[in-house]
Amino acid sequence: MAPATSLLTDHYELTMVEAALAAGTASRRSVFEVFARRLPEGRRYGLLAGTGRVLEGLADFRFGTAELDFLADRKVVNERTLNWLADFSFKGTITGYAEGEIYFPGSPLLQVESTFAEACILETYLLSVLNFDTAVASAASRMIAVADDRPCIEMGSRRTHEHSAVAAARAAIIAGFGATSNLEAGRSYGLPTTGTAAHSFTLLHDSEREAFQAQVATLGQGTTLLVDTYDVEQGVRTAVEVAGPELGGVRLDSGDLVEQARWVRSLLDELGNTNTRIVVTSDLDEYAIASLRSAPVDAYGVGTQLVTGSGHPTAGMVYKLVSREGNDGQWKDVAKAAIGKASVGGRKSAYRRLNERGRATAEVVGIDETPERTERDRDLIVPLVVDGELQPGFTGADGVKRAIERRKASIEELPGAARQMLRGEPVIPTVFVDEH
Amino acid sequence: MAPATSLLTDHYELTMVEAALAAGTASRRSVFEVFARRLPEGRRYGLLAGTGRVLEGLADFRFGTAELDFLADRKVVNERTLNWLADFSFKGTITGYAEGEIYFPGSPLLQVESTFAEACILETYLLSVLNFDTAVASAASRMIAVADDRPCIEMGSRRTHEHSAVAAARAAIIAGFGATSNLEAGRSYGLPTTGTAAHSFTLLHDSEREAFQAQVATLGQGTTLLVDTYDVEQGVRTAVEVAGPELGGVRLDSGDLVEQARWVRSLLDELGNTNTRIVVTSDLDEYAIASLRSAPVDAYGVGTQLVTGSGHPTAGMVYKLVSREGNDGQWKDVAKAAIGKASVGGRKSAYRRLNERGRATAEVVGIDETPERTERDRDLIVPLVVDGELQPGFTGADGVKRAIERRKASIEELPGAARQMLRGEPVIPTVFVDEH
Repeated sequence: MAPATSLLTDHYELTMVEAALAAGTASRRSVFEVFARRLPEGRRYGLLAGTGRVLEGLADFRFGTAELDFLADRKVVNERTLNWLADFSFKGTITGYAEGEIYFPGSPLLQVESTFAEACILETYLLSVLNFDTAVASAASRMIAVADDRPCIEMGSRRTHEHSAVAAARAAIIAGFGATSNLEAGRSYGLPTTGTAAHSFTLLHDSEREAFQAQVATLGQGTTLLVDTYDVEQGVRTAVEVAGPELGGVRLDSGDLVEQARWVRSLLDELGNTNTRIVVTSDLDEYAIASLRSAPVDAYGVGTQLVTGSGHPTAGMVYKLVSREGNDGQWKDVAKAAIGKASVGGRKSAYRRLNERGRATAEVVGIDETPERTERDRDLIVPLVVDGELQPGFTGADGVKRAIERRKASIEELPGAARQMLRGEPVIPTVFVDEH
Repeated sequence: MAPATSLLTDHYELTMVEAALAAGTASRRSVFEVFARRLPEGRRYGLLAGTGRVLEGLADFRFGTAELDFLADRKVVNERTLNWLADFSFKGTITGYAEGEIYFPGSPLLQVESTFAEACILETYLLSVLNFDTAVASAASRMIAVADDRPCIEMGSRRTHEHSAVAAARAAIIAGFGATSNLEAGRSYGLPTTGTAAHSFTLLHDSEREAFQAQVATLGQGTTLLVDTYDVEQGVRTAVEVAGPELGGVRLDSGDLVEQARWVRSLLDELGNTNTRIVVTSDLDEYAIASLRSAPVDAYGVGTQLVTGSGHPTAGMVYKLVSREGNDGQWKDVAKAAIGKASVGGRKSAYRRLNERGRATAEVVGIDETPERTERDRDLIVPLVVDGELQPGFTGADGVKRAIERRKASIEELPGAARQMLRGEPVIPTVFVDEH
């Protein structure tokens, strides 16, 4: 059995359940919504990731003996609440944007309909997964946009928490990265993994030549040799001497990459290694990748800036109660008025308005009713969990494949400005339609 | 049995082992070092966290059937390497700075001495843990410095990966936070957890008054009521009416906190609630906390900026081979020359030079030999694992307690400038002493 995910939450989710049970309001039917009030400054769109992981962990969101004993020992909640938690499994319905979908401010990314108590205790877990994974996917998508079809490799594991690293690899691949260095991501989600050698491998050996010989003997001539441990020019010459004309690639990990890529390309060509690829790594972000567009680079390895969301390590999504039953059994839309943090009450529908060329022109969000739409407009909300039943296709390796397809189709619809690095407003506006 | 940590690593760590096994260099004795080339820009010191978590996961860094099957299926490594991995458990020695210690550029935070292969495969895992935990602890420490002994509560779980959240809570408490909202952190490390209610709890009920009544009925008058769902003044008045003079606290989560705290304090005093505390939350970072110094605030709840390292979500530590045996059995110091990424070869010793008033004046790092020191100077390096044996006291709840003590003593030694928000150079210089 997988470890329970139920304590990956905030203390107050459980004290709220306790108070609501005592007040007789815990069983009120409720709709909670996940959305982002804004995109990170200057970003033109966001890329949703994490939905599959949310659903994977939902099955393990149970309170077993270990969890209940802890809550009892610490007196976090009372006996009645402990009994409620012991019986808990999510029986409600979750709808939302498919993983890999593009989103904008106010897009209703996930809606949870259930009793208040059931939806309440999921808050922290849902937001943790979606905020991290989406931050990485959104940054990754910008890198892909300027990589001009050159392959990008995710290699940031060492720059983030050891488990975040696995999620980051998954999110990067959903966004368009071709491979990851992270082995657990390979195992959990069937992702392609890749890697050759670090500087330490060169330093271990008595000479760079011996290190290259050892690597080629094991990984073959098609491997990529890291040539900047000592002198780059000598490194390239030695690499070619050792591996011959079939050398797969050389990796540059320091210095002025634009200039270096140019003369290394010339040198490789001069030595007859016209098919040897140049892979660059060294602290790349979307701006550095864009600046390498004209340089003879064949692949990018991206680490720190990818797994930390390139300046925006969290997506800023919130989880708000937007509608609930009252004493009288009637639904009532609710919203808080807090300054700068107001929310829009009501159950949402959403579609992407597309013009005759199939390009997106608006994010249309209906409040309580589905606004009129043309045949071209695309419905954005899909059922993920229905009355506690996980819908098929969203989790595991299949979920990743499906998210990749969704991302490709959704990116294709975006106006060209989305693929530019210029800061600006969201590339299409969010239009709220209230039928009341 | 805890899940294996051994695939939380980069593909290339294993291909390097394979190539080194084939070349006969895998068993060369080696020293790897973890250090940071620099602190985040403008920061005056760093606070090391994660060491205990590294050691906890080290015991589970084993390759069982599931891991080996994956590596074999994917042909990541060959049969010989699979056999080596199947037998692997770390038998080497790890020394380093104690968790909770202050550090500076070049401080030798961890040194791993073992065969090359054994040390090599730990790289990604060690760095993931230390880079994340230290980023959070370093940011947290700056917040504590300006909080002037007002309690700080960690509540950022929803803004980072669900497991990072647990590590972030642990790191925050090592840095001086008084409690966390994260329940799993409470369970795993014995940390105090806390929490009351969110806006959704108020919105669930037919009025703010009913919500407050429900909360007070369950959590008692000593609870903290969230008063900004609708109108703050009305919220405060209702809170006092419902809970009476013994109301524990009110929470402000939006708006201009400095101004609001002032008039809410006046209002509470006027209503006779002179002991009711004011807790502020709303996107605080160290600058916002510093700006609230003169406001009548009693506690800070910190989320996003804490768990994302307040602008620096990773500590930038690297893991470098600094010395290794050669063919002749002689140790040889090694370092790469890569532009901007050069490293200092050689096994390190380190102590903090203290003046007659017990204040730190320099970080002294010896290369291959321990430099002369006075009686006052404090040795920074402690044994963590000796010949594969974990040394006691560094892991679990005990490890956290010990790290808190270390942090208190080490912060006390720092010059006063460390506690200011002004950007600047590291508050003491790192001095390398090479006896050769």
